[in-house]
Amino acid sequence: MTASEFHNKVNYGNCRSFGTVFKSKCKETFFPDDPFREFKNEPCGRRTIKTIQYFIPIFEWLPKYNFGLFKYDLLAGITIATLAIPQGISYANLAKLPPIIGLYSSFVPPLIYAVFGSSKNLAVGTVAACSLLIAQSIGDRVSPTQDLKLYLSLVYTATLFSGLLQTAMGLLRLGILIDFLSHSTILGFMGGTALLICLQQLKGMLGLKHFTTKTGVYPVLHAVFARRDEWKWECFVMGVIFLVFLQITRYVKNKKPKLFWVSAIAPMVVVIAGCLFSYFDHADKFGIAIVGDLKKGINKPSIQLLNFDPKYIYAPLKAGFITALIALAEGIAIGRSFAIAKNQQIDGNKEMIAFGLMNIVGSFTSCYLTTGPFSKTAVNFNAGCKTAMSNVVMSLCMLLVLLFFAPLFSYTPLVALSAIIISAMLGLIEYEKAYHLFKTDKFDFLICISAFLGVSFISMEMGLMISVGLALIRALLYIARPASCKLGNIPDTKLYRDIEQYPGATGIPGTLILKLGSPIYFANCSYISERIVRWVRDEQAVTESSGNVIEHILLELGGVTAIDITGVETFFELRKKLETKGIKMILINPRQSVMEKLIVTKFIDKIGKENVFLSIEDAIDACRFSLNSSKEVKTEDF
Amino acid sequence: MTASEFHNKVNYGNCRSFGTVFKSKCKETFFPDDPFREFKNEPCGRRTIKTIQYFIPIFEWLPKYNFGLFKYDLLAGITIATLAIPQGISYANLAKLPPIIGLYSSFVPPLIYAVFGSSKNLAVGTVAACSLLIAQSIGDRVSPTQDLKLYLSLVYTATLFSGLLQTAMGLLRLGILIDFLSHSTILGFMGGTALLICLQQLKGMLGLKHFTTKTGVYPVLHAVFARRDEWKWECFVMGVIFLVFLQITRYVKNKKPKLFWVSAIAPMVVVIAGCLFSYFDHADKFGIAIVGDLKKGINKPSIQLLNFDPKYIYAPLKAGFITALIALAEGIAIGRSFAIAKNQQIDGNKEMIAFGLMNIVGSFTSCYLTTGPFSKTAVNFNAGCKTAMSNVVMSLCMLLVLLFFAPLFSYTPLVALSAIIISAMLGLIEYEKAYHLFKTDKFDFLICISAFLGVSFISMEMGLMISVGLALIRALLYIARPASCKLGNIPDTKLYRDIEQYPGATGIPGTLILKLGSPIYFANCSYISERIVRWVRDEQAVTESSGNVIEHILLELGGVTAIDITGVETFFELRKKLETKGIKMILINPRQSVMEKLIVTKFIDKIGKENVFLSIEDAIDACRFSLNSSKEVKTEDF
Repeated sequence: MTASEFHNKVNYGNCRSFGTVFKSKCKETFFPDDPFREFKNEPCGRRTIKTIQYFIPIFEWLPKYNFGLFKYDLLAGITIATLAIPQGISYANLAKLPPIIGLYSSFVPPLIYAVFGSSKNLAVGTVAACSLLIAQSIGDRVSPTQDLKLYLSLVYTATLFSGLLQTAMGLLRLGILIDFLSHSTILGFMGGTALLICLQQLKGMLGLKHFTTKTGVYPVLHAVFARRDEWKWECFVMGVIFLVFLQITRYVKNKKPKLFWVSAIAPMVVVIAGCLFSYFDHADKFGIAIVGDLKKGINKPSIQLLNFDPKYIYAPLKAGFITALIALAEGIAIGRSFAIAKNQQIDGNKEMIAFGLMNIVGSFTSCYLTTGPFSKTAVNFNAGCKTAMSNVVMSLCMLLVLLFFAPLFSYTPLVALSAIIISAMLGLIEYEKAYHLFKTDKFDFLICISAFLGVSFISMEMGLMISVGLALIRALLYIARPASCKLGNIPDTKLYRDIEQYPGATGIPGTLILKLGSPIYFANCSYISERIVRWVRDEQAVTESSGNVIEHILLELGGVTAIDITGVETFFELRKKLETKGIKMILINPRQSVMEKLIVTKFIDKIGKENVFLSIEDAIDACRFSLNSSKEVKTEDF
Repeated sequence: MTASEFHNKVNYGNCRSFGTVFKSKCKETFFPDDPFREFKNEPCGRRTIKTIQYFIPIFEWLPKYNFGLFKYDLLAGITIATLAIPQGISYANLAKLPPIIGLYSSFVPPLIYAVFGSSKNLAVGTVAACSLLIAQSIGDRVSPTQDLKLYLSLVYTATLFSGLLQTAMGLLRLGILIDFLSHSTILGFMGGTALLICLQQLKGMLGLKHFTTKTGVYPVLHAVFARRDEWKWECFVMGVIFLVFLQITRYVKNKKPKLFWVSAIAPMVVVIAGCLFSYFDHADKFGIAIVGDLKKGINKPSIQLLNFDPKYIYAPLKAGFITALIALAEGIAIGRSFAIAKNQQIDGNKEMIAFGLMNIVGSFTSCYLTTGPFSKTAVNFNAGCKTAMSNVVMSLCMLLVLLFFAPLFSYTPLVALSAIIISAMLGLIEYEKAYHLFKTDKFDFLICISAFLGVSFISMEMGLMISVGLALIRALLYIARPASCKLGNIPDTKLYRDIEQYPGATGIPGTLILKLGSPIYFANCSYISERIVRWVRDEQAVTESSGNVIEHILLELGGVTAIDITGVETFFELRKKLETKGIKMILINPRQSVMEKLIVTKFIDKIGKENVFLSIEDAIDACRFSLNSSKEVKTEDF
């Protein structure tokens, strides 16, 4: 038996050409879902239809639609409409926009989403976090109280930018960017935003007339307590009653999920009760402010209002960019989690295009940023929606409201809106989840809490950036300091496993077996090289006392997914270093992409094919063989 | 035989406490070299001495120093001193500083390095790239021709900032930051800088009086050709003669490495020849400008010149920060590569502290940024240096020059300096290496060429940032789209390998075996989940035609080095998805850190310990066992 028999199994193969590798990498990076796979082999006409159906999902589900499905969608649509009215008015208020804009935003965008959206559960609407962010970013530049028209035009412009960015990301298949907003970041960001929004609502709850335009915890609390003379107890009592009512309905829903509609219509009940009270009881004599000024009529075109004046462009650009990403992250995450519950597929890139288009059209028709908010989507889901038709039903309900009933809502007391917002926000401060993070992963907890504290005490953008930055640093650390471990043979098996994890595993005399993981490349190769040298040094310290010397070092490369040119250079250097110590370097099971790089850089030629094996077992057998034969030679010498 | 026998070998172990894990991670991240390992068990007194020796390496080598070693260091020191004089003057000229500052900078910093530095081959001096960067960054803010004193004070301040940053990085063990400047980035950056510097030298070579302060390729060429009336052919002829001479000596060195001293002293020869010519032949009558104004005397203190005026602070901060990193990257990379050649160890963190201290002291004593330049270090190495004593010898030579001979060098023609710089820079445009990159790794080539083009056509900082950014994006893509592969059994063995790489490997009916790699965490987990679902879909499409159905999916986790909380959540979702398709999820060989996270998040409880195996073989056996027993049950039903 010769040593060569142990390694004749390794496949060196033909290196794939650059074109092949590049194409397959691009495909994995941007088209991991392989959208055209299904109709690759179809005839041309059918392929065109399939392609249209693929890009415009309504053509896929509408032909199969029937009255049986519509019954469910009708109920769900009406339910979410009752939620959309108070939420629309409340969040518009939060974004410092006229309340009617909130109603407009629940009319046009849902129609667009129904055509292009791929999720069957998502309900479209405005969201609190983005509303506050818009108020903060654009309000910094132009005061809505001083120049409402300019403020409005910048908000529409920001919405247009959001829509363009979202569409572009969808078309360029950049869903990968959203992958970098981790759950922990979003949890902390949402919690921090909810806290800020709750604090902001103290203005409404206490009936304050003067308030700060800042959003941090400290300036808001300062503004609240500096104006103790403006506090109105009548207002506060009314707010607390509404809030307690809303929280009770929420509690009922949590206890009996079947009664979800109780909490779904509760905000509408609060609004109606508030309106009745202010209409019949002349709330203004108690100093309870009302919404006021809600005119009949549908969305006016706003395309002529879009403002690209370089003087102001930075604010809507920034607001548009950040809100686009947050809205996508929220909308797609929510769509995905409900799709999993029903075992449906949703396509992130298609969702981005749908969100983008609805915001672009929205910015032309007096709407501001919309996405798929969690609360509405959950209600839609629980109400039994079957398709995006529920969005169309909601949209039609909004049309009726806009045409006939809008003025009725002008009597809504502001304190009722505040109670609705606070109640919604309290559900977003998910301290149990944060505690779960703390228990299971301290670094994820740090990412989460830094977003929370950053948003609360610095600013929303800073909080988000710090948290994403920490998450990226963690990602880079993962690869800058990849784990490696020493393997040993598990007795009575041919398995080699981490000796720290399996203390029973025993080393092979004269050999050191190391398992590397992660890609090897510029940011970690000097670490890996030093780490291997340290393993050797430590091993030598142990074995020297027992009279053994290390003759072979086996590197298990099965877990190494890629190697770059600096990594290969490190291998060259490492081999030289080890050689001066009289240690032979042996590679085990390199993956295809690694093997290709090692061949093209001639490392395999340098090390010799006789030092590359398919499995640790083969390598150990070969080492033993060579040790024995070298001993035999030595013996013969005597 | 029961199914449980197949997996009783998996070690679930006790989860390590957060403290233990945190400590070991910090240690791997910041102290991968474990500096105190050697003297952990020594008595207190000895430990103190060892610690001092560790931090101040001179105490380690000086006691063992002897005349035998000194002979070598003396020769090497004198050789590098002859190089230090022309290079010092040239690079000071490049940094738009008075030439004497270049000589000062070769006197004090080498002494400091000799005390604190851990490399035995490094020769300290100024470098071209950083000199140009300083001229560009500080010159943008303050013109050296209009207010030299302010310019000088800002340069010293920048040097101080560099030194502070370098020391801080060393103390905080942030050598990891330098790992992110890849070889490809440095190659492109150095090439681009060399091109810029060569172009700049056209001023000297053509004897121009008016010139641009910009550094881009286009403005420099424009300035050269706009002033054709100032071109001096005498100057150009002299420059070309010097340049040809220098290139010939370089060629000689490359052909016969033993004659390295020919090219080492060549710049000195050029300077002396130039001085003699201008002194005896009155070069100024041909319009050949000379250095002028080199006064005798050693470094004056400059601590009183340090300028922290908030009006100017940004320029030295920026210059200090960037040059600090580039100087470290160059110095440490060079120190490391020569240490490998002699099989010595150098410690990156200690080197950073040494560089930092020498720059801090330098900024107090009229020196600007110094590091370990490649050319000088190579000469030092070839001249046979043994310890850092060669730096002390060079420093003493510089002392003699400063005290007695400095005024002689004031006759050096500027064109001689230009020829010296060009000759040095031509060696830095390493197009063969770039071609090698192109052949072996296209993305590394892109990183390199973007640094080169960015530096040449935009600005040095932008070039560097684009290139580092690309390298980071690549690093993030590595982990955002980790490779996964389908394994098959290699006939006649118990090995399971990638079926793409080993086309002979065959699948096991009813099971799909996937090997995952890289850490699983927020940025890649939705991709991994979708990829696995796609593997299943593809497999189903194949197997369904043959009448088989997939019943088990085996995930080989040996290559997964870490998992975060989002990753675990993805596993939960994936398990649910697969379950609805009637597929059982089985984990193979999770590493310790992954196993700990899976236990603490209760995923192991959810999936059941009977679905975790130590090897693919065990799992396959268990699957077959369960398939058989379920078939038996079915048969019994009939």
